[in-house]
Formats: sequence, structure tokens, C-alpha cells
Amino acid sequence: MKFSLKPSLNWLLVFVPVSLVLRIWPQLGSAAALFICACLAVIPLAGWMGRATEQLAEHLGQGLGGLLNATFGNAAELIIALMALSKGLTGVVKASITGSIIGNLLLVMGASIVAGGIKHRSQRFNKTAALASTTSLTLAVVALVIPTVFHWSAAGSGGWNPVLEQKLSLAIAVVLITTYAFVLTFELFTHKQLYSGEEENSATVEKKSHHTGGWSVQKSVFILVLATALVALMSEFLVGAVEGARAALGFTEVFVGVVVVAIIGNAAEHSTAVLMAMKNKMGLSLGIAVGSSLQIALFVAPVLVFVSYAFGRPMDLEFSLPEVVAVFFAVHLIFQISSDGETNWLEGVQLLSVYVILGILFFYLPEVHHAG
Amino acid sequence: MKFSLKPSLNWLLVFVPVSLVLRIWPQLGSAAALFICACLAVIPLAGWMGRATEQLAEHLGQGLGGLLNATFGNAAELIIALMALSKGLTGVVKASITGSIIGNLLLVMGASIVAGGIKHRSQRFNKTAALASTTSLTLAVVALVIPTVFHWSAAGSGGWNPVLEQKLSLAIAVVLITTYAFVLTFELFTHKQLYSGEEENSATVEKKSHHTGGWSVQKSVFILVLATALVALMSEFLVGAVEGARAALGFTEVFVGVVVVAIIGNAAEHSTAVLMAMKNKMGLSLGIAVGSSLQIALFVAPVLVFVSYAFGRPMDLEFSLPEVVAVFFAVHLIFQISSDGETNWLEGVQLLSVYVILGILFFYLPEVHHAG
Amino acid sequence: MKFSLKPSLNWLLVFVPVSLVLRIWPQLGSAAALFICACLAVIPLAGWMGRATEQLAEHLGQGLGGLLNATFGNAAELIIALMALSKGLTGVVKASITGSIIGNLLLVMGASIVAGGIKHRSQRFNKTAALASTTSLTLAVVALVIPTVFHWSAAGSGGWNPVLEQKLSLAIAVVLITTYAFVLTFELFTHKQLYSGEEENSATVEKKSHHTGGWSVQKSVFILVLATALVALMSEFLVGAVEGARAALGFTEVFVGVVVVAIIGNAAEHSTAVLMAMKNKMGLSLGIAVGSSLQIALFVAPVLVFVSYAFGRPMDLEFSLPEVVAVFFAVHLIFQISSDGETNWLEGVQLLSVYVILGILFFYLPEVHHAG
Repeated sequence: MKFSLKPSLNWLLVFVPVSLVLRIWPQLGSAAALFICACLAVIPLAGWMGRATEQLAEHLGQGLGGLLNATFGNAAELIIALMALSKGLTGVVKASITGSIIGNLLLVMGASIVAGGIKHRSQRFNKTAALASTTSLTLAVVALVIPTVFHWSAAGSGGWNPVLEQKLSLAIAVVLITTYAFVLTFELFTHKQLYSGEEENSATVEKKSHHTGGWSVQKSVFILVLATALVALMSEFLVGAVEGARAALGFTEVFVGVVVVAIIGNAAEHSTAVLMAMKNKMGLSLGIAVGSSLQIALFVAPVLVFVSYAFGRPMDLEFSLPEVVAVFFAVHLIFQISSDGETNWLEGVQLLSVYVILGILFFYLPEVHHAG
Repeated sequence: MKFSLKPSLNWLLVFVPVSLVLRIWPQLGSAAALFICACLAVIPLAGWMGRATEQLAEHLGQGLGGLLNATFGNAAELIIALMALSKGLTGVVKASITGSIIGNLLLVMGASIVAGGIKHRSQRFNKTAALASTTSLTLAVVALVIPTVFHWSAAGSGGWNPVLEQKLSLAIAVVLITTYAFVLTFELFTHKQLYSGEEENSATVEKKSHHTGGWSVQKSVFILVLATALVALMSEFLVGAVEGARAALGFTEVFVGVVVVAIIGNAAEHSTAVLMAMKNKMGLSLGIAVGSSLQIALFVAPVLVFVSYAFGRPMDLEFSLPEVVAVFFAVHLIFQISSDGETNWLEGVQLLSVYVILGILFFYLPEVHHAG
Repeated sequence: MKFSLKPSLNWLLVFVPVSLVLRIWPQLGSAAALFICACLAVIPLAGWMGRATEQLAEHLGQGLGGLLNATFGNAAELIIALMALSKGLTGVVKASITGSIIGNLLLVMGASIVAGGIKHRSQRFNKTAALASTTSLTLAVVALVIPTVFHWSAAGSGGWNPVLEQKLSLAIAVVLITTYAFVLTFELFTHKQLYSGEEENSATVEKKSHHTGGWSVQKSVFILVLATALVALMSEFLVGAVEGARAALGFTEVFVGVVVVAIIGNAAEHSTAVLMAMKNKMGLSLGIAVGSSLQIALFVAPVLVFVSYAFGRPMDLEFSLPEVVAVFFAVHLIFQISSDGETNWLEGVQLLSVYVILGILFFYLPEVHHAG
């Protein structure tokens, strides 16, 4: 387990049982204490997830590894969203959808490009794979924009009613999840070479240097599943505690969804993507961040719409104007930055700057009331 | 004439006289019967148009052939729009403009890319030619967005009036048709090699295999003109019958314009573009679909504005928000997909998915009332 | 000084003292006379600025030369904006910000590409450098869109107030100027080769042919500073006279800002960028036009926000919908056109067409009242 090699990070694992204790006996500490402990606990867990994913990526190829990691990372978010949905908190659920997309594309990707760009003058990746993903993201933007456009237009002509809006959202959700099946077919079957291939500049030397700490597939999967489960648990503690903190600190629902969820909920993707970028595997880094956004938009969002009917509290896909604008520009910037097949540190700074600008917007924005 | 070779398609030509009979003596059948017969008649005619265009493309080069085909295909639409305009149906005319653009870019192009992508792993085309066209499309989007922005802003400040809006639309129409003259100069004179050149990957082998069924220029032109005339006639029957069906089925004006016009009115471009894509001539396929959209936006739309003054019923260029958003994203996706100079089947699926999402929007959207 | 070589342009320098006389003794002529004289005086001055910049570019490399020129060109605009701000004319200041961005990207760049494209079939430039700049422009668009989105959303939920909006604008201004510092670090330090490098196709022959008229660094700097100072003075006369003309001719504030400021205020960038494009140095041409826009958005705009507090008349960054849409499409078109690393004359025509369409919009648009 090599605990001796990196003691500084692994010692933080002690906060996993501490958080558990604080959750079971809340009288031992405040919500703030639980929040901080869970935060600290997530860091080493995310690190183990990253290492296990990297090992699996060795066996499966970079793209599959990235997809796997995105799946596990979003399992936590899906569970949290389902719990919120069961309580009828559609506003929080929607904000966490847009927040996850923006957080992955701007914060995770921005930090990865900066971290990688400090060491490497420019980092290359497969343009065709990146374009396939960013085009799917644009499709997701259309899917999120259309219910909002419908709302405005129908309201303007006096013909809007919530039943029509739910039918529209349900039909769009079906299109989204169908498209996701096609995207997976493309990534895993017909064009898998684009994703499993080696990076242009990391080449074979990099490949070999990894074999020193090589894990078996079984060991990688076991550690990945265990770490993901614990991250999900800790994330749940975090979100529970954050909701209390929100009221105390006066944060709006959207700000918490967009900023806090983006930072905490994507911690796993974040640390793995940054690690890959520093190792000059920008293709894998992009695969994780963009793949995670895609999965949220094309898989998690429609699943939540479907499940909301099972809960008897139908959720539509109408988002507020600031959310729609934020997702549109996040996707546009990722397309723009990846259009030349290479990144440099300034592009990371630009993504982070836009993230900060959007964070400022959601911080100052008065509470928005969702229709659904 | 090789009727014996493909009997299944050419037998459908019998529906041309059948449609004619049903139109002249309506008491022989319902509007629905005329609709179905005209639909079936269009299929073989479009096939002959495609073959004639292909033969001409052999003589003129791919780009010129594509331009020629787009011109003939849109002649039918221009005639139909003029008839609708003479009856003051500006709402239908506008919806058919946006519907044609969306239909060509998303439905025709999406189907072509999927059809070509099933056989070919990736298909390449001239990037510079594609960029020139997609930039013109972006210009067209600006031209369609501006009157809507004007309406909102002027209404907000209390200074809007219909005369101002018509002056604005007229001035923009002049800019559009002038730009179209420059686009044609670029395509036909200064940079014609971009359009007449061979595809990167179809190369010379493809070229030779075609010579077996080679037609003369005269024969190609004759068949193209005859088939186009019959397609125009059948399309007119179709649209006439569809209008009756619309009232019966409860479809909105915009849904009919965007969806029905897109499928029927562009049948010719559709079948030719798909045929070219399957033969791995993606450059010609893109030239047909994008060229047709461009001609609608930069030539047909301004001509309709000018002619509307002759009819004494001035039409402006203000479109509804859903139409503007739909055209913007259709153009954005085509730019995004063509930015790397190659296509794969997933990109076709993405275009079709967005077309379906927009179709859902226009299906559920309550009737919108155009200002002009 | 080679006055004998190009007498036609340099004779116009006589209008510098003539304008000065008309300004000091206004009774000698009308505002229109001053306007025309100042216009004519700017032409040769801008020419000298261009030549001095070109000489400096020889010494410093093309990108640095372009940056330098943009700095000097915008010094004039910054001075004018500060004067307008001190009089509380925030509407004019805002319109001059958007007008400068649109003017540089569409008018200056469009004219340059057409001028260069007439002689050269296609002109190439460094794609990575162009992408870094256009991504920064997209960031600037987000920064300009967000306060407008905030206004609409907050107004819709009843929670809007001007203090919140000023805080938001101030925070965004801090992000913008910080990003500008990073952009300069990228351009001048970590990736300066991208900007100082030679053009792919102008190569070494071009380089040598210039040495015939080579100036020293000192001489170049002296002429540049002197010419810039005189251009600033003349521009100030122009704007003063234009304001009088505006009332007489019935132009709106926004039209004057967007169209007149774009043509006059950017005369220096204009002539230099066109000159460089004709010499097939499209990289420098793009560097001037895009760099000037960037400096307006990331440096001049935030400085004006900060200074507005010193003047006790806080200015926010909320722009009207037409301004936001115009800047968005201008930036989008520049990104689209530069995405393939080469230009042709049609792309210049497309930029100019969009400029004309936007000019028409601002001409017909009734007076818009800014919130700030």
C-alpha cells in the first residue's frame, strides 16, 4: 500500500472515521466541523481513486480509463441528486446539474491546463476525440436552452402551461439518453482507437516508467470501487452540512449548486485530471473533465427527469437564464480551446477567469425561483 | 434510360400523372391521397435530379455541380414562397425560410453524414471551402437575429414602429444579396479550384469508375431541368395538400414550415447529398446542403423581401425567438463539425438529435404571431 | 523624412495647424469645418504612426510591434473616454467601448483582409497566437454579457438594485485586468516566440527589402510618440465636433459611439493593419486589430470602471442587448475566420458585411438609456 511513501496525504484518511463519528453523534461537533472533516477526508480518497484509475487506464487504454473514472465520479453526484429529488428540491438538483457541467469544464479543466502548462510549453491531444465530445456538449446546450426558449415564447403568446413543458422536457430527455447510447457506441466500439491510443508527445517512454508501480486489474478495480464508495459517503456528509452552512452564511441555492458542488462533488475528477495533465497526458485529462460533463448532461439529467416521475414530483429541464448562459459559454470556450488540438497555460487561466466571473454572478444573484 | 436496372424506384414515376389527375379532379380523392401520391412521385424525380447533377458535376467539378443542384432545388421553394407571399401568408413564408435552413443543415447533412459514415470510418473534405460557407451562414444568422434584437430593444424603449422595422429589413436584405454576389464571385471565379478540386481520399479511382454511365452535358442538363420542373410541381401539390392537413391535424404554422417543408421541400438536395456521401464525396454533399441553406438565406430571403413590396404587402425579416435560436445552433453545429475537415457517423447522429429536439420544440410550441 | 517621395499624403499635415486654429478661434469656422480638417489631419499622422510602428516591429518582432501600436492607438481613446467620464457621459463611454471592439474586429480587420486578399490568394498567420487572442476576446464577451444577464434575472425576481450591480461590475473589472496581466505575460515572456516569429509565407525576402528605409529605435520611438500625441489631439477635436454634429444630424449616441468612434478613433490601427496586410504580414495585421480590441476590453474598460469611482460617478459594465449581441457576433466571426490559420478576401467581405448590418441596426435603433 506504500503508506510510507506519501504519508502527508494518506494520514488524512483518519478523517473518514472522524466524519462518520460526527455524523452519527452530531452533538460531538457542529455542521462546520463535519464539513471540514469530510472535506479533508475526500482529498486522500480522491487521490486513491486517481491512482486506481490511472492503473486501470494502463490496462484499458486512456479513453476507457477516463470514461470509467467519470462514471464513478458521477455515481456520487447521481446518488446525492436522487436524495435531493426525493425531498422535492428540484432547484438544488438543477443547480447541481449546471454546476457540475460548468465546474468540470471551467474549474477542473482550467486547473488541469494550468498545472500541466507550467511544466510543458504546449500539450497535445487527439483533436477528433475532443471534437466528438465538444459537439455532444453543444447538443446538450441546445437541450438545456430549448425548454427555456419554450417557456419564454409560450408565455409571450399566452399559451404556456406546465403540462406542455413537462412533456417537452420528457421528450428531450429521451433524445438525450438515446444520443448518449450512440456516444458510448462511438467511444467504446466503432472509434475506440481514438480514445485508447497513445498521446502524440508522451509516447512510449512515459508508458514504461509506469510499470514500476503496476497494479493488477482486480486490485485497481477493488481500490477504485472502495474509494468511490467512501467519496460518495463523504460527499453526502458534505452536502448535508453545506445546506446548513448555506442558511447561516446567506448563500443562494444556485451559488451553492454551481460553486460548492463544482468544487466538492468533482474533487475526484479534479485531482485525477490535474495529475494526468502534469504527466503530460492531456488527452486523458480532457477525457475526464469533458466526459464527466457529458455524462451529467446526457445521462444523469435525463435519468433524474425519469425518476422524478416515479417520485410523483415531475422535474422539467427549464433552467434560469444565468445558468443557460453560463453553460453555453463554458461549452463554447472548451470547443474554442480544444479546436487546435493543443493547450497552453494561458488557456487554463482563461477558463479559470470565466469560472471566477460566473462565480461572482451567482454570488450576487438574488434567489431565482425555478418553475419546475 | 436504364429503367430495367432499377425498376423499384422508377415505377414510382407513375404517381406523377396520378397526382396531376387528383389535382385537376379533386373529387376523385381527398387531400391526403394527393399528399401521399405527390410524396411518392417526388422520390424517383429526386433520384433523377441527383443522377443528372452527378453527371454534370463530372463535367463542371464537384463544387459547381453542388451549386447548380442547390439552385435548382431552391427554385421550387422560391416559387412556393412567392405564391404564399401573394396571399399575404408571411408567417408561412418566414417559417419555410428558417425550416429550409435548419432542414438542410441538420436533417439533410445529418442523414448524409450517417449514411456515409456507416461505410467509411472518416470522410474528408476541403476545410477552406467549408469555412467560407459556414462563415457566410454565420453572417446570415446575424442578419436574422438583428431585426429581432431591434424589435425587443426598440419596444423596450418605446420607440418601435413597423415602418422603422421594414426599413431595417430592407437595408439588411440589400446587404445580404450583395454579399451573395461576392460569395458567388469567390466560388465561381477567384477560388473555384477549392470547389472543383478532387476529394482528398476519393481520388482518381472513384473518378474513373463513374465513366461507365457517362452522360453528355446536354443530356444531363435536359434531365435536370425536366426533373426539377416536375419536383417543383409535385412540391406545390404537396404544400397545398399539407395546408389542409395542418388544420385537420392541429399542427402549428411553424411546425409545418420547419418540419414538413424541411423534409419535402428539400427532398432533392436530400437524396443527392446522401448519395454523394455514400460515394465518399463528402465535399459535394456538404456543398449541396450548406450551399442550399446559404442560397435560401442570402438570395431567396432578400428576393422575397423585395417582391413583397411589389405585392404591396411588405414582409420584414423579424423571426420569432425559437426560430432565431434554432438557426443559430444549426449553423454553430455545422461550423463545429466541419472545423476539422472530416466527419464520422457520430457527428451525423448529433445533427439529427438536434433536429429532433428542435422538431419537438416546434411541435409543442403554441402558435406564434409574426409581426410582419 | 522623404517628404518628396509621397507628397500627396504628407501635404495633408497642413490640416494639423488649421484644426488647431479652428479650435482656438471657433468663430473662424463651423463645427463641420473643424470635423473635416481634423479628419484630413489624422490621415497622414496615422500613416507616420504606421511607418514608425513598422520600423519598431523590425527591431522588436512583429507581435511586440503590434502590441506597441495597439497601446499607442488606444491611449488616444482612453484619454477621450476619461474626459467623457468626467462629464458623467457613461452612455457615450460605454458605446465607445463596444464600438471600438466591433470597429477593430469587423471594420479594421475586414478592410485589412480585403486589401491583403486582392493581391494574395490566401494569407497565413500563426494559429496558436490567434487562438490565444480570440479566446481572451470570448472571455471579454462573457464579462460584458454577465452584468446584462444579471440585470434581467435580478429584475425578474424583484431583487435588482444598482449597488449590487456596481459591486458585480467592480469584481468583474478586477478579474479582467488580472487576466490582462496574464495575457501580457504570455505574449511578452513565456510564449513570445509566437508573436515575434516570422510569417510562414512572407519569409526572409520580405525582411531584407525593408532594410532600405531602416530607422533607428530612437527615431522610430520619437516619431511614434509625436504622431500618437497629434492623433490624440485631432481625435479629441473630432469627437468634440462630432457631438455637435450628432445633435444636428439626429444620430443616436450609440450610433456615434459604434460607427464614428470605430472609424475615427481607430484610424491609426486601421491604416497600419491595412498596410501590413498588403505586405502579406497578416499575423501583424491580426495582432493589431485583435490586440487593440483586447486592450479595450481587458484594460481600458476596467480602468474606466475604477476611475469612475475616483470621479464619484460609478460606471457599471451593463451594456444594452444590441451592443452585447454585436460584440458576441464580432468575436465569434473573428474566431471562426482565424480558426484555419489563413484568410482570403471573401472573409474580409463577410466581416465588412456584418459591420454594415450592425451599422444599420445602430442607425435605426431609437435612443437606448443605460442604467449606469
